[in-house]
Amino acid sequence: MTKNNNPKTTIVDIIGSGRVANHLLRAFNQNPQKNVDANLVNPRTLLGARPFAQIALIAVSDNAIEQVAAKLNYPNAIIAHTSGSTPIDILKPFAPQTGVFYPLQTFSLERKLEYSKIPFFIEGSSKQTADSLAALAASISNQYHIADSQQRKALHVAAVFACNFTNHLWAIADTILNENGLTFEMIRPLLEETLNKTNILSPLQAQTGPAARGDSKTIEAHRQFLASAPDLQNLYSLLSSSIQNLQNKNHP
Amino acid sequence: MTKNNNPKTTIVDIIGSGRVANHLLRAFNQNPQKNVDANLVNPRTLLGARPFAQIALIAVSDNAIEQVAAKLNYPNAIIAHTSGSTPIDILKPFAPQTGVFYPLQTFSLERKLEYSKIPFFIEGSSKQTADSLAALAASISNQYHIADSQQRKALHVAAVFACNFTNHLWAIADTILNENGLTFEMIRPLLEETLNKTNILSPLQAQTGPAARGDSKTIEAHRQFLASAPDLQNLYSLLSSSIQNLQNKNHP
Repeated sequence: MTKNNNPKTTIVDIIGSGRVANHLLRAFNQNPQKNVDANLVNPRTLLGARPFAQIALIAVSDNAIEQVAAKLNYPNAIIAHTSGSTPIDILKPFAPQTGVFYPLQTFSLERKLEYSKIPFFIEGSSKQTADSLAALAASISNQYHIADSQQRKALHVAAVFACNFTNHLWAIADTILNENGLTFEMIRPLLEETLNKTNILSPLQAQTGPAARGDSKTIEAHRQFLASAPDLQNLYSLLSSSIQNLQNKNHP
Repeated sequence: MTKNNNPKTTIVDIIGSGRVANHLLRAFNQNPQKNVDANLVNPRTLLGARPFAQIALIAVSDNAIEQVAAKLNYPNAIIAHTSGSTPIDILKPFAPQTGVFYPLQTFSLERKLEYSKIPFFIEGSSKQTADSLAALAASISNQYHIADSQQRKALHVAAVFACNFTNHLWAIADTILNENGLTFEMIRPLLEETLNKTNILSPLQAQTGPAARGDSKTIEAHRQFLASAPDLQNLYSLLSSSIQNLQNKNHP
């Protein structure tokens, strides 16, 4: 990236070496306005740190945030972390202006991402701090939201259900298919349509399948099918009941 | 649809009035080769039935297949059903040539579907019957597979995990988000990327999140968050253990 001497340039140090740190660097560097001068800083040695930076983003694992924050030396910077499940308060002892800059996405180094579509969730120790972090998010993405630590926790729990647990159900499906000479590719069009359907119906309205229609004969046949895998059988039963509970709660 | 007198035209009666029957009719009518003359037949009155049809597809709910088959009058047709979880044998008493013509997709009347991407799973009482049904599937879709009743059951169980249960996890996420002033749209980019990631990594390899990385502190914080919803707390724990079990099984 060519050095930009535009006075409106924001100097951002990203402290981290993992997936989030690297994707944020790419995102700032791809930003067509070129109004962010971003730089990676090694979280152990602090090599690359620029004490004159205006914003320092701590993009390390949740457990390491506090100890990294304690050794930083940015006299005038906003110090923000990028974690969904860590309160803003953890940074309070280390700087007058603190914040959270949380991109809600699953990051793999192998994947190219459309950064403009990633929603950022912003929190600031003051309105001014939040505004600065929001402007930084807006330089990458079309979507940012102000969210407090409780909302961020809700987002993270929701994301575990909707992303991590969902992926696990796909891993289970993959296993069942492989054991029967079938492949995950065969169900991909079904998964795509299941997701696309939520564009026109809420997931609650879009619910289909044996549990939703109270088809106890099919549920029992599927439980029999899973008899040799008690873990999966148990999960099948619990998820089927959970579908019925949620429906009863919404249409008693 | 204009009547097609091409001698290679296959006459297909679709017995049913629901989502699958209607989507199959649309799919045959959109087929650019115009080599299928398809027609809906009312499953109660049999209005619209053409006794000279070559293939009769029973697209009714699983429980009704047998009683519909019993009253059909197609002296020379292949009689096939479109159900994932019903064995081919159920049709045996009613015709010499029987089969299964199972489209693996979630069908809503509101949605337009790309029929060419729907995988069809075919079974026939003879090789010739299977070939005829396979040719019919090929007139709609780029993808068909020969699958026996056991494989079809595996597909259906896998689809319940990957589609119905997944949709339920999204409904749970939606509830959690709404209760905290957030919306499902905020996690949509995350869901899309979670699915896209499985193009380059198997779901087992793609697994991320607190359970996958053994982050018991976050798991406990999330369980606390869900304390007022014991059902969800229980589901959270079971799915987290299930992720760890599957990982241990594959990388002991």
